[in-house]
This record gives sequence, structure tokens and C-alpha cells, in this order.
Amino acid sequence: MDYQALLADRTELMKANAIREILKVVARPGVVSLAGGIPSPESFPMEIFRELTDKVLTKYSSGAFQYDLTEGFLPLREQVSVLLESRGIKTPPDAVNITSGSQGVLDAIAKLLISKGDKIALEAPTYLGALSAFNPYEPTYVRMDMDDDGLIPESLEATLKTHKIKFIYLVPTFQNPTGRTITLDRRIKIADIIKKYNALLVEDDPYSALRYKGENLPAIKTMAEDHVIYVSTLSKIFAPGLRIGFYAAPEFLRKWLVLVKQGIDLHTSTFNQALAAEYLEGNYLSTHLPKIISLYKPKQAAMMSAINEHLPKEFVCSPSDGGMFLWVKGPEGFDMIRLYHKAIENGVAFVPGKFFFTDETEGIETMRLNYTMADEKTIQTAIGKLADTILAL
Amino acid sequence: MDYQALLADRTELMKANAIREILKVVARPGVVSLAGGIPSPESFPMEIFRELTDKVLTKYSSGAFQYDLTEGFLPLREQVSVLLESRGIKTPPDAVNITSGSQGVLDAIAKLLISKGDKIALEAPTYLGALSAFNPYEPTYVRMDMDDDGLIPESLEATLKTHKIKFIYLVPTFQNPTGRTITLDRRIKIADIIKKYNALLVEDDPYSALRYKGENLPAIKTMAEDHVIYVSTLSKIFAPGLRIGFYAAPEFLRKWLVLVKQGIDLHTSTFNQALAAEYLEGNYLSTHLPKIISLYKPKQAAMMSAINEHLPKEFVCSPSDGGMFLWVKGPEGFDMIRLYHKAIENGVAFVPGKFFFTDETEGIETMRLNYTMADEKTIQTAIGKLADTILAL
Repeated sequence: MDYQALLADRTELMKANAIREILKVVARPGVVSLAGGIPSPESFPMEIFRELTDKVLTKYSSGAFQYDLTEGFLPLREQVSVLLESRGIKTPPDAVNITSGSQGVLDAIAKLLISKGDKIALEAPTYLGALSAFNPYEPTYVRMDMDDDGLIPESLEATLKTHKIKFIYLVPTFQNPTGRTITLDRRIKIADIIKKYNALLVEDDPYSALRYKGENLPAIKTMAEDHVIYVSTLSKIFAPGLRIGFYAAPEFLRKWLVLVKQGIDLHTSTFNQALAAEYLEGNYLSTHLPKIISLYKPKQAAMMSAINEHLPKEFVCSPSDGGMFLWVKGPEGFDMIRLYHKAIENGVAFVPGKFFFTDETEGIETMRLNYTMADEKTIQTAIGKLADTILAL
Repeated sequence: MDYQALLADRTELMKANAIREILKVVARPGVVSLAGGIPSPESFPMEIFRELTDKVLTKYSSGAFQYDLTEGFLPLREQVSVLLESRGIKTPPDAVNITSGSQGVLDAIAKLLISKGDKIALEAPTYLGALSAFNPYEPTYVRMDMDDDGLIPESLEATLKTHKIKFIYLVPTFQNPTGRTITLDRRIKIADIIKKYNALLVEDDPYSALRYKGENLPAIKTMAEDHVIYVSTLSKIFAPGLRIGFYAAPEFLRKWLVLVKQGIDLHTSTFNQALAAEYLEGNYLSTHLPKIISLYKPKQAAMMSAINEHLPKEFVCSPSDGGMFLWVKGPEGFDMIRLYHKAIENGVAFVPGKFFFTDETEGIETMRLNYTMADEKTIQTAIGKLADTILAL
């Protein structure tokens, strides 16, 4: 059979996630990987899972294994509503929706909103998983400027002035890949701009709970409620393998997003939603989250100090107060792909930053470093090896 | 904000699943619902879930909660490979893929293959969940004839001769909504036809394990391997709320389907896949499945005999050897929607059959009856009430 001839037109824009391909290469023994993007298994609350499953079986019995509403399992929606309120986002339970990871809502948003050729405005660099959700619906991308304080509001305004933008996609806090956070001042400006231009923002917030220093910042959703789909997940504060994402959207879009999800997977696992509901209702998060932070904070500090100590001065790390990543920019024109291949030979892996840009000419001299998976000593040794590799180039 | 203006063109073809709307109405107290389409909670192996979760926690520990391969959790793929072999489908573990329910693979197939206007060939009537997976990708449908022996092969051949068909979608065994099964003789003919016309078949098989009489029939996949994506699920033989579907596809399509799924939800819940792996590996299915069959078989028998006993002779039920549904056709032109409204008043709900047809003029005089949720006595009383309602029309 000629299977190729069967493929839909949209497949032209779909390609394998470059980072997943890299991760396969670096999984070999002897390589310290700073390339990953996943939480440490030590961050999972393993000691309470038996308790949680017992509670769910006792409390919900067969209800935890039956088909359920596409909107989400009500006890979890109630708990997420409380979680959202703690982030300043007032959303009643029936306006909270649950998806299969935040990837699930990014896919649903794209399916609902993107017609072929529609323009999406993105930070440069941006989160690759969002692109793999958006690409199959054939959008075009408009890249916006950012610096160490996050998205530059003037770049957003210029974009909205000159382009018809379907929606803006941002990761405002501890962004993947840069670890950067949009400042409060800029958040206020961004909220004003999207209101002024009647624009829709998809605010993706997987990391804000993982703050290692500084004060919490309000979500842009709190400043422009009707203009923002706020997206988050339990993957970084509970367990990613359970695939629990959630969102708060303006009512009109919410109804459509539920209809879209019905066609995608009917609903998210009832059992996992019940586990998540017990995790939140039992207040386990408030004791467990500090443990996750105690686990990651010294790793981040170790990586930052090793970068400052070992890497040549032209390699500059963006400041970051939380999350899972640090972003390093080398001297203008420095070929990070070349370094990547040499570094692998020396037993250290990272992700060249160019993969996070929609414009292929950008980001040649950048790299993303993950610090959640290795211990402090290994991180320091690995950065030392990176420095040696740079010097030997 | 004008949210309506944001919607993608594809939303024109998307509408709420009519049956889900009906189910909301009939959930009121005092109404016996034969309208549902879900397994009985009594069919879930509640007595072993504690054991299964214990095994998973001991055996996989944090691995059951971490991100995992888009392709599926390897221990489950190994077990599903064995399950498929018991159905005559030889697929090594690395060619088995797991999705979030079979809805998840129907969505992925549609996303991968359907360009706007592409033609999909369907049984008339067909499974509504498949339409809600396909509709957003803007196909057109070509309906094919079926009778009590399932799809009529000549109708398939005529369709492939006169239309360029992207793929054929069939539920060959205990079809939803009709409960009908394609005979062995016809399966052989259908396999020959799809090979002759180089066509692709999506063979959806959620129910074949729920056989109450007669001999197992081979899947069409076994007769035309390279031409069939075989889709199935653990929803009816384990627990639907865990959202575990699986498929066996030709290699070229499989690679693409994995890429598509990566953008949809990254992967299916690791924990639930691990539970399913333990369920299959521990051989629980072989003791539990006979219990499910003992539960449903008398319900089906009770409904069939009540239909024959109580309904007027012009109301004819299609023979069915398994699954969850019976299909009744009234006299030519009989308005089943009118009966539906009267029956609700009398405390019985069903789904008017016309909702399962893509051609709005078809199926006016048909109804789908579900027998998994009520007990035998209730089923008999409900069918009696239906008969009274018909007589009083």
C-alpha cells in the first residue's frame, strides 16, 4: 500500500520533537544529561501513594473507574478551584476543567482556534511542546522579543499592531527553556495591551509553584480575566505520569474546549483525577511542595555557581528564580551545535537552544541546561567538563 | 471580546454528541435508562484493585509516576501483544501502541489522515464517538448498507469503485449501535475487497470479548494485515475510567500516529498503563472476563425475550451474540422521536436510532437499547412500559 499518499496535508508541518530525538542519544551510559526536561523521581510523593489509592478506593469505589464527565471529575475541579484561588484566580469549580496533561489543553486550544495560516504570537525562544500541539493545525508564527525580564511589552504591542493574531502563547514564569520570569511591571503592561487590542492570551504556567527565591507574582489572568486562558498542571507538583492538566477559560471558549476534548479522549482518567483530588483535599501538597523546593533549590544554586565559576566570561546565564532550567548564551555566533557534539564525547549532554526558536537563524549561540535530574556534585562536575570542552574547541 | 470570531473553520462541523445530551435528560430519578452506553460498575474487578496498585507500587515504584514513552508503557505493550495474539493478531510488543482510550487513537487517525473533504466510508448506522473524533477534520461521509449479518460486502465494493475513500471505518463485532456482527463469510469477502482496491480499514473492536453465544470470529486484521489499523480497548474488560486503548497498525502509519499522539497528550497515564499491565500479566482477565459475561448474558437474554413477548410484532430486534446493545426497528415511517418523548413521561429512556446515521433521513423508525446497566427484572418492566407507550400512541 502507498501509505504516504494517505497522509493529510497537515502532516507537512509535523515533525519529531528535536529534543526527544536528542534525549534518545544521550540516554547512553557514561553521559551526564543536563538535556532532559523532566522532574526528578525524588520529587514524587512516593510515601503517600498507597494512602491515596486506599482513600480513593474507599471513598469513590467503582466511581473512580467509571466513565466520567468530559469537563473533569467534580471533586478534583473543586480542589483545583481552591488551588487557583491561592494563585489569585477566582474560578468556581464548574468553570475549572481538567485535561490529560497541559499538553491536552494546548492541543484542544489549537484545534478549536487555529485555521490554516492563522498567526500565533510567541516568545522567542518558546516551549517546544506547545509547537508540537499547534503545528498540526497549520498556523504561522510571529516571534516576539524577550530579555532577562521576560517578554518585552513593546514587542507584543508592535506585533498586535501589525499582525492579525489569533492568540498569544506565553510561559510567563520560569519559562521553558530560559528559566526567565516576566516582571510585575511588564505583566501589568501586557495585560493592558491585550485588553487594548482585544487579544487572547494562552498563559501556560507549569512552574510557578517551583519558586526558590523572591516573591510570587500574579498571573496575567488575574489582570485580564476575559482575555486569558490560564493553563497549568500537576505534573511538577504531584506526578507527571498521572497526566493531570487543568485550565480556566472564558465561558464561551470553555464550552467549546469541552466539546473538542470529547472528540479527543472523552475524558481524563477518573482514577488519576480522584488521586489528585485526594492529594489536594488532604493538604498533602502543602507539606510536599516544600520538599520539592528543598530538592531543586540547591541544584539550581550549584549549577549557577558552577557556570559562573567554570564557564568563560562570555557565556552568560539568564537570572532565574525557579523552575527546572537555566539558559546560557555564548559569544555572538558561537556554534552551540558543534559544542554539543564535542560535549557528548566528553560525557555531558545539553540541548542546543536553537531548537526552541521558530526562526531557524536564531539562538545559534544558546543552550538550555536542566538541573532537576542530577545531584549537585554531578552538576558541578558536568559544568566543569562543559567548560573544558569549550576551551578545547 | 468577540470569542466567536476566534473559532477555527473546522468548528462548523463540530456539535455536541446528541446522545450525551439525551443522557443528561434521562438522568432524572424515576426514569429507567436503556439509553446509556456504559459498562455496569458491577463489571469492574473492584476486589483486585488494591492488590494491583500494591503490585505496581512495589514493582515500578516512581517509574509508574514518571513521564514515559509516547508509544506506550513497555510492560503493557508486552501484555497487549499477548492479548492480540489470542485474537489471532501477531504483533510484537514494539508494534503495539497504547492510547488514551480508543477515542485517543480514533482522534489520532483522523488527525493523521483526513484532509478537508476527504471521504470516509461508514456503516449506516455507525458509532457516534468515531464521528466526534472525525468531524473536526472536516471529512465527508459515504454511508454503506448493512443488514443483520453486518456490512454488505457488495456495498463496500460499490463504494470503493465509485469514490476515492481515505479509509473505511467499521465495528465488525457486536456493533454499537446495532449489536450486529459481520459474518465470517462476509469478513473474508471484505478482506479481499480492501486488498483488491488497496484500501485502508479502521477496524474498531471494543466488544468482541463480550460474547454470550456462538464462536469467536477472526478480526479482519488477520486476513488483510497491511490494510488494517486494528483498534481496541480495555474499557469493557477492565475499567473504562482508566482510559486505556490500544492499536496495531502498519509500521509506516504507526510511526506517524506516535508523532501525532506526542502533540495530543505526550503519552497515556503511566500508572494506569502499569495497572493494566499487572491485570493482564497476573492473568486476572481470564477469571474476571467470565464474570462480566455471566453478568451481561442474562440481561441480554431478558431484554430479547421481553422485546419478543411485549413489543408489537412489527418491532423487530436484530439478532446479537454479544456486546452491550440491541437494535429494534419499528414499522416503516414510525417516528421513534415521538415515542422517545412519550416513553420518558412513562419512565423509560432509550436512544432514537436516527442519531447514529450520517444521513438525516435514515433510521427514523429505529432505536438502540442498552442492557448493561439495569437488572433483568427492571429491563423486563421497562420493555413492558415501552410496549404500553407504543400501544397508547
